[in-house]
Amino acid sequence: MNSDFEVTILGTSAATPSKDTWLSGHYVRAKNLHILIDCGEGTQFQMLRCEISPLKLTHILITHLHGDHYFGLIGLLSSMCLQRREQPLHIFAPSGLDEIITIHAKHSHIIFPFPIHFHPLPDSPSILWEDEEWSIHHFSLNHRIFCQGFLIQEKPPKRKILRDKLPQDFPFQQFPLLQEGKDVVFNDILYKNEEVTTTAYLPRSYAYCSDTSYFEEIIPFIQNVSLLYHESTFIDKDSETAFSTYHSTSVHAATIAQKANTKHLIIGHFSTRYKDLTIFLEEAKSIFPNTHLAESGKVFGIEKSI
Amino acid sequence: MNSDFEVTILGTSAATPSKDTWLSGHYVRAKNLHILIDCGEGTQFQMLRCEISPLKLTHILITHLHGDHYFGLIGLLSSMCLQRREQPLHIFAPSGLDEIITIHAKHSHIIFPFPIHFHPLPDSPSILWEDEEWSIHHFSLNHRIFCQGFLIQEKPPKRKILRDKLPQDFPFQQFPLLQEGKDVVFNDILYKNEEVTTTAYLPRSYAYCSDTSYFEEIIPFIQNVSLLYHESTFIDKDSETAFSTYHSTSVHAATIAQKANTKHLIIGHFSTRYKDLTIFLEEAKSIFPNTHLAESGKVFGIEKSI
Repeated sequence: MNSDFEVTILGTSAATPSKDTWLSGHYVRAKNLHILIDCGEGTQFQMLRCEISPLKLTHILITHLHGDHYFGLIGLLSSMCLQRREQPLHIFAPSGLDEIITIHAKHSHIIFPFPIHFHPLPDSPSILWEDEEWSIHHFSLNHRIFCQGFLIQEKPPKRKILRDKLPQDFPFQQFPLLQEGKDVVFNDILYKNEEVTTTAYLPRSYAYCSDTSYFEEIIPFIQNVSLLYHESTFIDKDSETAFSTYHSTSVHAATIAQKANTKHLIIGHFSTRYKDLTIFLEEAKSIFPNTHLAESGKVFGIEKSI
Repeated sequence: MNSDFEVTILGTSAATPSKDTWLSGHYVRAKNLHILIDCGEGTQFQMLRCEISPLKLTHILITHLHGDHYFGLIGLLSSMCLQRREQPLHIFAPSGLDEIITIHAKHSHIIFPFPIHFHPLPDSPSILWEDEEWSIHHFSLNHRIFCQGFLIQEKPPKRKILRDKLPQDFPFQQFPLLQEGKDVVFNDILYKNEEVTTTAYLPRSYAYCSDTSYFEEIIPFIQNVSLLYHESTFIDKDSETAFSTYHSTSVHAATIAQKANTKHLIIGHFSTRYKDLTIFLEEAKSIFPNTHLAESGKVFGIEKSI
């Protein structure tokens, strides 16, 4: 069953592709929002395979300007042109990507038939976008170049009304006030919100952290998230390489998930030096049992819970 | 058996990829030359699958700056960096691609550890490169933007010496002169070259023509080539669309092959609107029987003949 909030893994490899793997890209559906996070070369191929139309994307978020995270963007935008997209597209990315898109468009004679709203990512954490139900935030990771993590956060849903706590003739016009958490007076009786409503479900959230070294400063931003994606380029025995390249190990990712009290963890961005990924999962699970391996094409639903 | 002159098809689709096809890219091995012609997004993935190392490429030729012919280049160059390539690389491409590479490198913090010799393609036909055995030429196609075809031409091989036409004591130090086609005097006897040597084999050649409308002006450049690749984006019934988009049909490609007296023809760059490619082959073969369909991963050897 499809969830109304789900993450599709498009690629799992760090740096360069291998014969069977793809580069970074996650597609996030959050009800009416269709968000692509990172867009390594070949992302549009994987979207085709996963039957995700580029035309429905509303937002593209790019963490940083290493090629394995954005070289697929210009091809994706070009395909949107050929598909005669008209709907505006919001791109949140490090400053500089706008210049890259402009230079390609100049030499390839691309005229975008749809508005591209390019938003350079600020240095300090901020809310990038919000509507009534969702907000998109960013925060700094610790990589060799400017690199940002993203949080897609559901706003508190409408409260669920407990009909048996209300009289039969309670006016339904007052329901929206109760759903918003307010108290209501009817026939001179005060109906206190916490007595006549209950939490529908806990707001859900998804955080994406790639690429970064072990960096506890991100924990306040990802505290209690429903699903955390944290890069795990290396296994524990290669932690020195992780340190020197500003990447993380399976142990680092799991430790962050544990300290941030997240519900689930996906690890990915695996170095192609490892042919068997079992050890990544074993190492991470020994610290954080709810760990899952990123696999191209795999969908993670983020279900409602109380 | 591997030939010392062969073409590997990396991608066959026009404009956008489909679920199962890739964009333009041909790898040509001509003895010690390793040439990539065009480099659509995903070309490096296909090279991995075909076990062609980017490190051995000596030349990259780009026909024009529509994305399906070059969007994969920056990813390929980036992977060469990660693989610590040191050998120089010659790129022949329309002016502008150098600026695109430079802007990417600036924002992605790429420092190429190998020399890139960028050669902008001249407007008029010329020899781009040559050594003792091969020459690479370009000539104009007729597309919406500046677009060039390429010819990889073998130089006449050394002549084969007919030992039974020479005396036993004929000095072997004179053999190179005979192989170069010269007459030789020994013991006051003139040995005329055409009497004591024979053609080893006919020089071989490969021409690449994509993208272009039907354009007879290319015929002098591709006359008698061993193997011609000519784009065939459309089938005959869609010739009006071919005309308006400056592309060719199967009938156009086959007619050019026939008029240029080529030995074999490969057609490719198929529009993804066609699910079954049989009709392309049937239409082309009705005019030029030695037609072959481009298929990703397929290798065409160009054998020696007299």
